[in-house]
Amino acid sequence: MNINIDQMRKFSIQTFMKLDMPEDEATVLTDVLLEADLREIHSHGFLRLPIYVERIQKGLITNKVELTVETENASMALVDGNYGAGQVVAYKAMEKSIEKAEETGIGLVAVKNSNHFGISAYYSLMAAKQDKIGIVISNVAPLMPAIGGAEKVIGNNPISIAAPSGEGDPIVLDMALSNTAYGKILFAKEKGQSIPEGWGVDAKGISTTNPDDVINGGFLSPVGGPKGFGLAFMAEILTGVLSGGDFSKMIPSMYDVNQKQSIAHFMLTIDIKKLIPLEIYNSSVKQLVSYMKDSKKAEGTEQIFLPGEIEFLKEKRNKEKGVPMEEQTFKNLNELAKELEIDALTV
Amino acid sequence: MNINIDQMRKFSIQTFMKLDMPEDEATVLTDVLLEADLREIHSHGFLRLPIYVERIQKGLITNKVELTVETENASMALVDGNYGAGQVVAYKAMEKSIEKAEETGIGLVAVKNSNHFGISAYYSLMAAKQDKIGIVISNVAPLMPAIGGAEKVIGNNPISIAAPSGEGDPIVLDMALSNTAYGKILFAKEKGQSIPEGWGVDAKGISTTNPDDVINGGFLSPVGGPKGFGLAFMAEILTGVLSGGDFSKMIPSMYDVNQKQSIAHFMLTIDIKKLIPLEIYNSSVKQLVSYMKDSKKAEGTEQIFLPGEIEFLKEKRNKEKGVPMEEQTFKNLNELAKELEIDALTV
Repeated sequence: MNINIDQMRKFSIQTFMKLDMPEDEATVLTDVLLEADLREIHSHGFLRLPIYVERIQKGLITNKVELTVETENASMALVDGNYGAGQVVAYKAMEKSIEKAEETGIGLVAVKNSNHFGISAYYSLMAAKQDKIGIVISNVAPLMPAIGGAEKVIGNNPISIAAPSGEGDPIVLDMALSNTAYGKILFAKEKGQSIPEGWGVDAKGISTTNPDDVINGGFLSPVGGPKGFGLAFMAEILTGVLSGGDFSKMIPSMYDVNQKQSIAHFMLTIDIKKLIPLEIYNSSVKQLVSYMKDSKKAEGTEQIFLPGEIEFLKEKRNKEKGVPMEEQTFKNLNELAKELEIDALTV
Repeated sequence: MNINIDQMRKFSIQTFMKLDMPEDEATVLTDVLLEADLREIHSHGFLRLPIYVERIQKGLITNKVELTVETENASMALVDGNYGAGQVVAYKAMEKSIEKAEETGIGLVAVKNSNHFGISAYYSLMAAKQDKIGIVISNVAPLMPAIGGAEKVIGNNPISIAAPSGEGDPIVLDMALSNTAYGKILFAKEKGQSIPEGWGVDAKGISTTNPDDVINGGFLSPVGGPKGFGLAFMAEILTGVLSGGDFSKMIPSMYDVNQKQSIAHFMLTIDIKKLIPLEIYNSSVKQLVSYMKDSKKAEGTEQIFLPGEIEFLKEKRNKEKGVPMEEQTFKNLNELAKELEIDALTV
C-alpha cells in the first residue's frame, strides 16, 4: 500500500505533539522520518515511530530539546544533547555547523548525549542544499565484533558525505559500516539461500556462508573486513571519544526500553566558496559526474548511478504516489493512533 | 635481505640531492619512503624511488617545492603544489593544517597540482603525534570503473585517519578504496587459485573469480561495491574538485613518463584540546581500546589488533633488524646509484 505523504506528515506531527513535544521539534523529527521513507530507507522511517514514542513516554528521550553548548569558538562547538530526540539535536547541531562554516569556511560540531538520529543523509544534505559539503558521522549501539572478535563491541556507525552538484540533485553518500543489513541475512534464510563470504560470522567469530549461523548467536561483519572495522573504530573516536560522550559498549540498543541511549555525532561543514569560486566547483563537479555517467558500461548495465541518485528518483516518485508501507507497519501505527487518540492513517 | 635504515636514509637523501633537490626536501621525501618500508607497505617505499627519480629528471616533478597559497583564512587554505614532490608538498600542507588547528581548533588545507605522495598515514600521523586528529585524503590516477562500468574512471583514493591514544602508539587507519591490491590478484594467478567475489571484474565489467579475467583487461573493484565506490567518488570531490584541481580521467598514471600528474589532497586537522580536555580524551580512548582488545576472541584468534597496530610492530622490528627488501628492488636501486654516482646499498 502507498500512503499519502501529507497524511503521514500530519500523523507524525500530531503523534509527537500529543507527547508534549513543541510543534517545531515534532516537525523536524517527522521530516527526518518521512525523508527516510521517501528515499525507501524504510528501516529508518515510520517503522521506528512507535519505538521513539515509547522511549519518549518512558522519559528515555526528552520531549523538548535543550542543547547545552559546552565549548565554542568561531569554527567549533561541543554540544550536549541532554538526551533530546536525536533528529532534533542533530538538526540543530548541523545548523550550528553550517553557521560556523559561513563565518570561517569550516564548522565542526561535536555532539554527545543525543539519541538515534535516523538517516544521516538528512543532515549532510542540509549543507549540500546550501552550496556546502556536509560530513556527518554517528555512533550507534555496538552490533559487530572487532576483527578476530566474537562479541559485539562496535557499531555499524553511519557515515554520510553530501556535496552540491550545481544544477542537479546533490550527491550524497550514506552508508553503514556493516557489509550488509541484518534484514538481508533474514531474507537469505527465508529463501533458503547461502550468504556471500564476508557478510557475517558465527557465534564463535568464524566466517560463515550459512545465514542460520549469523542469526543464531553470530554477528554481522564490517564492510571490507579490516577496512570497515577501521572506519567504524575511527568513527567512534570522532563521535563518542572526541565529544567526551559515550561509545562502544556504553551504548545500549534503542530497543532496550529500560536505559537511556547516549549517542554521539560529528557534524562537519565546509563552505566551498571560501576556498574556490562556486562556478569553478560547479563546472568541475559536472565534469566529474560526466566522467562516471558517460563511461563505458558493463555488459547488461544501462545506466551508471552516483551516490544517492537512486534514492532521489525514489523520493520524486513517492512524493507523487505516496510512500510504500508494509501492512504490519500500517497496523502498528494505527494502534498507536488509537492509544494516543489521533486520526488514523488511511490508504 | 634486510637493509640498515641509516644506510637507506643516506642513500635516498643523496639520490635526491644529486637531482638538485634541497637537503631538507630530500630528507622529507626520504622519510616518507622509509616510513612506508618500515611499516612494510613496500609498494609505497623504496620500490618507487626510481620512478620518482625519473619523473624529476624529466621535469615532471620539480626538484624544489614552491607552494602558492591561493586562498587563506584562519581555518583554511588552498595551496597550489606547482608539481613539486608529493611527499614534500603534502608535508608542508599538513604543517599548515596543524598550525591552523592550533589557532582555531580545526585546519583544512586543500592542495592541487601535487604528485603521488606515498603513504597517507605519514601525514595524518603528523597530527596524531601532536595530540591532534588528522584526516588525509588523496586522489590518484583512475584504476577502477564506476559501479556498472567497464572503464577506469576512479582512483582507489587513499583515506587515512590518525588519532592519539594517550601513552600508546597513535591509532592510524590507512586504506585504499579498492577491495584488494593488484598484487594479490597476481599472487592468486601464480598459485593457480581463484579470487573471492568482489575483488575484480572482467573486461566487460562482469564480476569474476578468475584472476586471469582481471589481469587480461579487467579491473579492480571498490571495497564493498557501492560503498567503496561512493567513498572514492566523494574523495574525488573533497580533493580534486574542492581544490579546483584535477580528478578522475584528467590524472595520468605515475608510470606514464610523458605527462605531469596533478594529484590533489585534503588535509584536515582537529585540535582535540580545543573541544575537550586531553585527559578526558585520553581516558576515553584508553577505554575504547580496551573494549576492543579485551573483547571475547574468535576461535583461533590470540589477539585483536587496532588500525595501524601491526604496522607499528613491524616498524619497531625493522628499525632494529633493517628493512626487508626484494632482490629486484635492491638491484634496481644500485643501478640507479651507479648512474647517479652515489654509494651503492650493501646488505
